[in-house]
Amino acid sequence: MPIQAVVFDAYGTLYDTQSVAAITEEVFPGHGDLITQVWRIKQLEYSWLRSLMGRYEDFAQLTRDALAYTIRTLGLSADPATFDRIVRRYDQLGLYSDVRPSLHKLRDRKLAILSNGSPAMLNALVKHSTLTDVFAATISVDAAKVFKPHPEAYRLIETMLGVAPPEVLFVSSNPWDACGAKAFGLNVAWIERVSPQAMAEACARSDLVSPLTMFKAIRTQMDELGFAPDYRIGALSELPGIVSRA
Amino acid sequence: MPIQAVVFDAYGTLYDTQSVAAITEEVFPGHGDLITQVWRIKQLEYSWLRSLMGRYEDFAQLTRDALAYTIRTLGLSADPATFDRIVRRYDQLGLYSDVRPSLHKLRDRKLAILSNGSPAMLNALVKHSTLTDVFAATISVDAAKVFKPHPEAYRLIETMLGVAPPEVLFVSSNPWDACGAKAFGLNVAWIERVSPQAMAEACARSDLVSPLTMFKAIRTQMDELGFAPDYRIGALSELPGIVSRA
Repeated sequence: MPIQAVVFDAYGTLYDTQSVAAITEEVFPGHGDLITQVWRIKQLEYSWLRSLMGRYEDFAQLTRDALAYTIRTLGLSADPATFDRIVRRYDQLGLYSDVRPSLHKLRDRKLAILSNGSPAMLNALVKHSTLTDVFAATISVDAAKVFKPHPEAYRLIETMLGVAPPEVLFVSSNPWDACGAKAFGLNVAWIERVSPQAMAEACARSDLVSPLTMFKAIRTQMDELGFAPDYRIGALSELPGIVSRA
Repeated sequence: MPIQAVVFDAYGTLYDTQSVAAITEEVFPGHGDLITQVWRIKQLEYSWLRSLMGRYEDFAQLTRDALAYTIRTLGLSADPATFDRIVRRYDQLGLYSDVRPSLHKLRDRKLAILSNGSPAMLNALVKHSTLTDVFAATISVDAAKVFKPHPEAYRLIETMLGVAPPEVLFVSSNPWDACGAKAFGLNVAWIERVSPQAMAEACARSDLVSPLTMFKAIRTQMDELGFAPDYRIGALSELPGIVSRA
């Protein structure tokens, strides 16, 4: 069935969550990398845990909660103004280099974002990256009050765009997100940002690892969740070919 | 209200999941610690993700899936017999040293386990540690087909033991589990196995960290999930005093 809409995950797929490392290192010299990784891990954990507990709070709140956990765990502290300055960087994440040209070549389809981010976070992010005119919709799971990979989060694509799952290509670099979208019934392209070989090499000296290596070891390789993406791609530039052939 | 039943989480609370490090290091010299940490992190992630996806599989399957992910990610491989030998160690985890004497002093209450573990895993574990006669019930979330911290998992305590939530003290070292139990309405004692000071010291040299330090940084400190345990304890030996005063 032809692909009518291409829908992108935001964090880690279009926008590089590693962009916050500059400010975490500036504020906490020597701890920037560890803070960035623990922050991102806890942010996702809190989205899953609160969804399971039936205690939804929006992603802006979880992002603050996860940063508070991280700073406390490392035995550090931040005054409210500094804390806010770090959190605000999440609204200014950098785009991966292949995003803009790839989106341009896909403009004959409906393009959208489906993200855990709160509406305010996503609007700020899209505006900051000057992509406002590119997307037909920026869909936040906030409308379903549950986070991905719950099926109700993916159902928002049809609700908001009016395109049925078999006509949607969902694109994510997050393995759990790719599996969740596939379980729901979307066509899925997974961006493999860290090759298995690079991953194995980074883990070869494993008595001590960088926090980034540990992060990659738990978040970048395809998960064992019983579902496989339809396409494994190395870069967003492969999408126009996939869409035109589908 | 008096405490009629004391219900324990199993993994990380009564049983030390670090016990598997001996076999992972034996089979994969130099990688044992990293494998142990990634394995445990993914095992929990898969329990939350599959619960959210509505794609429950029991904890024995998730434990195998998480180990398969871990071995693949590190660029290693294991033949089926070796793989089984590693997984079987999960049925033979060591007890924390304060478990047996503390349980003995609590024998005037109903004692039980509520765990993510499958019935077969839990039965093997309790038998191996010769605690079969101590527990009135070994409750697996498998009866609810959803993992903690979903409320239906905690509801099994009343279903299986016939004791209402206000008369239960739930004990866990897992911060997310303590929060989930509190959100459900149980009395909760959280075992703080790593003090904030020890945690901060371990993170102080943070350009390179041991995999165990990274694990601790994301799994041992109280979470920011909007709920706080009723009791923070340093050891299970504090429980008899809490129960008699409650």
